[in-house]
Amino acid sequence: MSLEHVLNARSVAVVGASKVPTKRGYQTIRTLLDEGYEGAIYPVNPKESRIMGLACHTAVSKIPGDVDVALIATPARTVPAILEDCGKKGVKGAVILATGFGETGATGKALENRVLEAAGSNHIRLIGPNTSGMMNLKDNLNLVGLKDSPRGDIALLTQSGNMALTLITEAKLKSRKGFTYYVGVGNEADIRFHEYLEFFRNDPDTRAILMYVEGMRDGRKFLQTAYKTTEKKPVVLLKSGRSSTGKRSAGSHTGALAGMSRVAKGAFERAGIIVIENSDELFPAAESLSSLPPIRNNRIAILADGGGHATIAADTLTDLGVQIPELEKKTQDKLRAILPGGAAVRNPIDVAGGTDDNPAIFADCARIILNDPNVGGLLIVGLFGGYGIRFAASLAMMEEDAAHQMGKMVRRYKKAIVVHSLYNSEKPHSLDLLRYYDIPVFGSLDVACKSIGVLAQYGRYLKGYHAKTNFVFNWGAKAKPDGRKIIDTVYRQGRTALLEPEAKRLLGLHGAAVTRDVLAGTAQEAADAAAVMGGKVALKIASPDILHKSDAKGVLLNLSGKEKVKKAFREIIKNARTFKADARIEGVLVCPMVQTGVEVIIGTKIDDQFGPVIMYGLGGVMVEILKDVSFRVLPITRLTARMMIEDTKSHPILDGVRGDTPHDKKALINLLLTCSEIIEAYPQIEEMDLNPVIVHHEGLSVVDARILLKPSGDAEKGGPAA
Amino acid sequence: MSLEHVLNARSVAVVGASKVPTKRGYQTIRTLLDEGYEGAIYPVNPKESRIMGLACHTAVSKIPGDVDVALIATPARTVPAILEDCGKKGVKGAVILATGFGETGATGKALENRVLEAAGSNHIRLIGPNTSGMMNLKDNLNLVGLKDSPRGDIALLTQSGNMALTLITEAKLKSRKGFTYYVGVGNEADIRFHEYLEFFRNDPDTRAILMYVEGMRDGRKFLQTAYKTTEKKPVVLLKSGRSSTGKRSAGSHTGALAGMSRVAKGAFERAGIIVIENSDELFPAAESLSSLPPIRNNRIAILADGGGHATIAADTLTDLGVQIPELEKKTQDKLRAILPGGAAVRNPIDVAGGTDDNPAIFADCARIILNDPNVGGLLIVGLFGGYGIRFAASLAMMEEDAAHQMGKMVRRYKKAIVVHSLYNSEKPHSLDLLRYYDIPVFGSLDVACKSIGVLAQYGRYLKGYHAKTNFVFNWGAKAKPDGRKIIDTVYRQGRTALLEPEAKRLLGLHGAAVTRDVLAGTAQEAADAAAVMGGKVALKIASPDILHKSDAKGVLLNLSGKEKVKKAFREIIKNARTFKADARIEGVLVCPMVQTGVEVIIGTKIDDQFGPVIMYGLGGVMVEILKDVSFRVLPITRLTARMMIEDTKSHPILDGVRGDTPHDKKALINLLLTCSEIIEAYPQIEEMDLNPVIVHHEGLSVVDARILLKPSGDAEKGGPAA
Repeated sequence: MSLEHVLNARSVAVVGASKVPTKRGYQTIRTLLDEGYEGAIYPVNPKESRIMGLACHTAVSKIPGDVDVALIATPARTVPAILEDCGKKGVKGAVILATGFGETGATGKALENRVLEAAGSNHIRLIGPNTSGMMNLKDNLNLVGLKDSPRGDIALLTQSGNMALTLITEAKLKSRKGFTYYVGVGNEADIRFHEYLEFFRNDPDTRAILMYVEGMRDGRKFLQTAYKTTEKKPVVLLKSGRSSTGKRSAGSHTGALAGMSRVAKGAFERAGIIVIENSDELFPAAESLSSLPPIRNNRIAILADGGGHATIAADTLTDLGVQIPELEKKTQDKLRAILPGGAAVRNPIDVAGGTDDNPAIFADCARIILNDPNVGGLLIVGLFGGYGIRFAASLAMMEEDAAHQMGKMVRRYKKAIVVHSLYNSEKPHSLDLLRYYDIPVFGSLDVACKSIGVLAQYGRYLKGYHAKTNFVFNWGAKAKPDGRKIIDTVYRQGRTALLEPEAKRLLGLHGAAVTRDVLAGTAQEAADAAAVMGGKVALKIASPDILHKSDAKGVLLNLSGKEKVKKAFREIIKNARTFKADARIEGVLVCPMVQTGVEVIIGTKIDDQFGPVIMYGLGGVMVEILKDVSFRVLPITRLTARMMIEDTKSHPILDGVRGDTPHDKKALINLLLTCSEIIEAYPQIEEMDLNPVIVHHEGLSVVDARILLKPSGDAEKGGPAA
Repeated sequence: MSLEHVLNARSVAVVGASKVPTKRGYQTIRTLLDEGYEGAIYPVNPKESRIMGLACHTAVSKIPGDVDVALIATPARTVPAILEDCGKKGVKGAVILATGFGETGATGKALENRVLEAAGSNHIRLIGPNTSGMMNLKDNLNLVGLKDSPRGDIALLTQSGNMALTLITEAKLKSRKGFTYYVGVGNEADIRFHEYLEFFRNDPDTRAILMYVEGMRDGRKFLQTAYKTTEKKPVVLLKSGRSSTGKRSAGSHTGALAGMSRVAKGAFERAGIIVIENSDELFPAAESLSSLPPIRNNRIAILADGGGHATIAADTLTDLGVQIPELEKKTQDKLRAILPGGAAVRNPIDVAGGTDDNPAIFADCARIILNDPNVGGLLIVGLFGGYGIRFAASLAMMEEDAAHQMGKMVRRYKKAIVVHSLYNSEKPHSLDLLRYYDIPVFGSLDVACKSIGVLAQYGRYLKGYHAKTNFVFNWGAKAKPDGRKIIDTVYRQGRTALLEPEAKRLLGLHGAAVTRDVLAGTAQEAADAAAVMGGKVALKIASPDILHKSDAKGVLLNLSGKEKVKKAFREIIKNARTFKADARIEGVLVCPMVQTGVEVIIGTKIDDQFGPVIMYGLGGVMVEILKDVSFRVLPITRLTARMMIEDTKSHPILDGVRGDTPHDKKALINLLLTCSEIIEAYPQIEEMDLNPVIVHHEGLSVVDARILLKPSGDAEKGGPAA
């Protein structure tokens, strides 16, 4: 059901309306009245007859007119009954403020489930519980009771009332920007992140979406919605709860799972979301992205009136992956013509005192610089705005002139300008003028750099591969009948772990180059199999009761010759018995030793927030010590598989170092795609580990494979469906 | 000569005094008069008789009284003659504002040298040139002309006038802190960073030193002075010019070399300096460090009135290497007794609404928390200071009460409190009270985290190894007579590169386990040598004209058997001739192939700023692809050698992975110390490369070594003397 009637409600019941000014049931009505909400307001409180001049009702069901939304400001235990009563009235949505639900443990979770049931059977959509509320600032529908929140073009979606307050305060004090909507998602019991996002995507007044997330319940749907959103408008997100103490803290506040893992960051960025890691940069990033066009060529010029700021800005932008191109000779000549001899004109541009008597020269410089086709955006750093304060009041007028000129340039050239000013906190009029033209101004140099940096980042995304490749989770990969049989057998035998031969057979069915192993029941069989294979072999125990074969001394490598193989067979059986006397032993697997190559590992698992994900890394110390791995949400495309490989720092080893010839990257990409296909085709799989895989100069060998299934009851429900 | 007469001057001549208010020669005198400088002020300008009521002099030498310092505000070309004139008067110091010296190229450099000569022969110490000037705020000796700079206990030392202006403005607008001194070092033509630092170290009114550096001329002396300074008071430093464009920008402003390399960061931190990378955090770090005691146990508690801020703070502090310990059970019980049921009390502590009616409860919580022996410092995040604004004005008084209580706690418990407040920009009185008690308050959560984080970082340093180990550059390592002979021979033969046998002999003289190679003049000699060695051998060309032996196909490995060795000898000679027909060939080096082990590399070079430095890393792809290396300034101690090894991410490989036995780390440490000794003993060495070194389970083998000398003329002057 659309959120139209909820977020754009034309009538509101306030359940728990109050005459006490510190109560939420007072503040909300007061704010709705003061800010001029034009819809109907119905206070509900059986103990009062009138509140703030409005008739008070004993129950929602007793209200004479239609009610779109009920704000429920009463304690948790009262909520199910109130929802039932709302149902009688045909209420479309409810905002539940109370805490004491899923975020507090099992009892609260049970209450939350009762609330969900009551809402479901009465067709009521829920915001919260455990939310600070919701505001629609376009219609003055303010259900938070936070007065004077600035109106504007940013939609705000957060999981922390504190962070909302921080961001709204920041907007009010430090910008001319404001919000279309604010929603505190609370426990996401009913309406989820992706539904709000979808709504804001379609809202014509919203130009950017700003999010603070601790954890989300349905990451996959969110990613898909985000992908579709970011092609239309930017989404900026900060996710906290990275550290274990951070999680401990977040855990006490949200019902969802927390954890800013590398999985999450990679997934968000895949969908075109601008992920912010420093909370100081969150609102400024939204301010830039909602105000200015993305920078399409990743190239920025820096204009400064002194050395230090330009140097720091160049460092910071370079760290952000932005280029600071040398300006065209023609541009340099034009700048030289209006600046003193000591000026730097290559980029960064330093006016070297050339603006001291006339800061309007900043506008002349900006015009020349923006005319350079190498330049996609301009960052001005230093004292602009402060000439009138620091030197002489008459200079302020010239700064204002420059601000008017530069404001119009942004529109004419469709290139971003962002300004850092040391005098920002003095609030000179010229800086306010810049903001009037949608040029963001910051007192912090780092924040200014980041704010123009995200315009370049969004531009890179829009021009790049990901924006052009649909983010689909259902590719229609099909299970093979023989594959289905393998899994059925495992379940039928009461197992959830595939034996190595079963895992390899399943992989082989889908085209993976697994080693061609033979299961030997006797020492003689093992010796015969080894003779047929030729070369050296490895022997591995095959037992449903021994998952980690090395721990049971169940693996012997590099064997050749009949007697050695026989002896090894007997040794492995003996070791297995020692390890676990009653282990069921199916035999010993005889595997050809593969030619040398680069060792890699591939793993898949079901992430709590994003469903099936895949990990890739070079094997050995690269994974064990350096943790040099990359993650993606499954399924993946061919190009994504390639990017996964190239995301690891150690990937050049595959290309061959020290004159070694390259290894077969194409085969590796195919194997990653096979894994993707298998995970989609068999939703029963919980985890898969290919370790090691040896990548040869031609082809590769999956040497060992481990597949774990979900408990049989869960098998069908948690699949990767879109 | 001490800087006493310069920085604490009792009389000032202003050369280039002016009646024009936009001129520096006017502004300086105006400011000295307005701010109540008690020393004598002597305007100097041959064209004026009186300026601002003061008698104007035609030249410094014509001034009747003593002159400690001359501020020279005239153009560059006039400076040498003015200094000569100052000399006649016995002036102790001069501040040279003009640009157009070393920073502009060769002509400017020549002028700078003339200035230096004039200063030297007249015993005048110079600040600048190319400086914004100097202020001694204790004596109102303000030679910058920047009015109303706040007085306080921080000494400011920068290489950018802009950054000085930024930091002074920030102190004024956002803190109650200020400065004892400000010096713009300019080109460091005469007085260097370390001399200022030494002065501030001894200044009893300076509690912390704040620096912005683009490049420095004498890094080694600076490090030694910094080491001695940080045992007494903290030094905070931001160094820009990391990126190549940043360098381009810095390069146009300073005569010195730029580049925030890993060498620089490591060297600064070795000396106990707090290195800041984000300019927003620079002043706040100095504010904390000058106001509060260091945190000795690296453990911080977080007190919040809502979830989001606590979560972000926990993440950020964890990233900074700080621990967020769980509080003692007793502490948790006490907190639970005064907070509502929903409160989190383990750490982070969330009051969960418990302060809504009475924010003075923050002080009660703080007292309980600071009493916990696990807690070294307290970070308060959220709304404190805003209760009176957001809820009811009466709450402001309770906040003020809490501020008074907490201010006294810092003194009683000698534990730091830092506060983040969303309402900082509203400037409530309670936050000003906190600052009155030296509790820093920040509007940015990230900055607040960093500001308490540096107290923990400084505490870690003071408790750690480095603070206790003197930073000495002259260890008295002596050259061996035979070593000196080797180097003399190389120079005598007109070379600067040692041949591999020479390099290995030099290393061997100092105890390094070099392979015992034999130089063979004929194929037969090579075969005989190989037979004596036994096992496999490597053959390498020995030619002063072939430095990179592999490029000339001059290396063959894994040879055994008389005929194979002979054939290889002939092939190498042939390859060498093909590579360079007229190469002088000394023969072919026969080297035993060493047993396997972990490959590492060691290199030394002369850094432009810090003199001799050493690099260490695991060989192969770790260095080539992952750049996993560590650096130190030479000489190093045994423990530093160990820390260098442990600084590399891949170092666990030496301990043995996958059940491999450990490699001989002690031998590796000894080799690093040998390199340190050699570089000190032979100042002629420019570069040394040991690549590869194979570290065995017992012992190690230096398989190849390359040593380059300085051009013979430079050899003695650039040594590692202290």
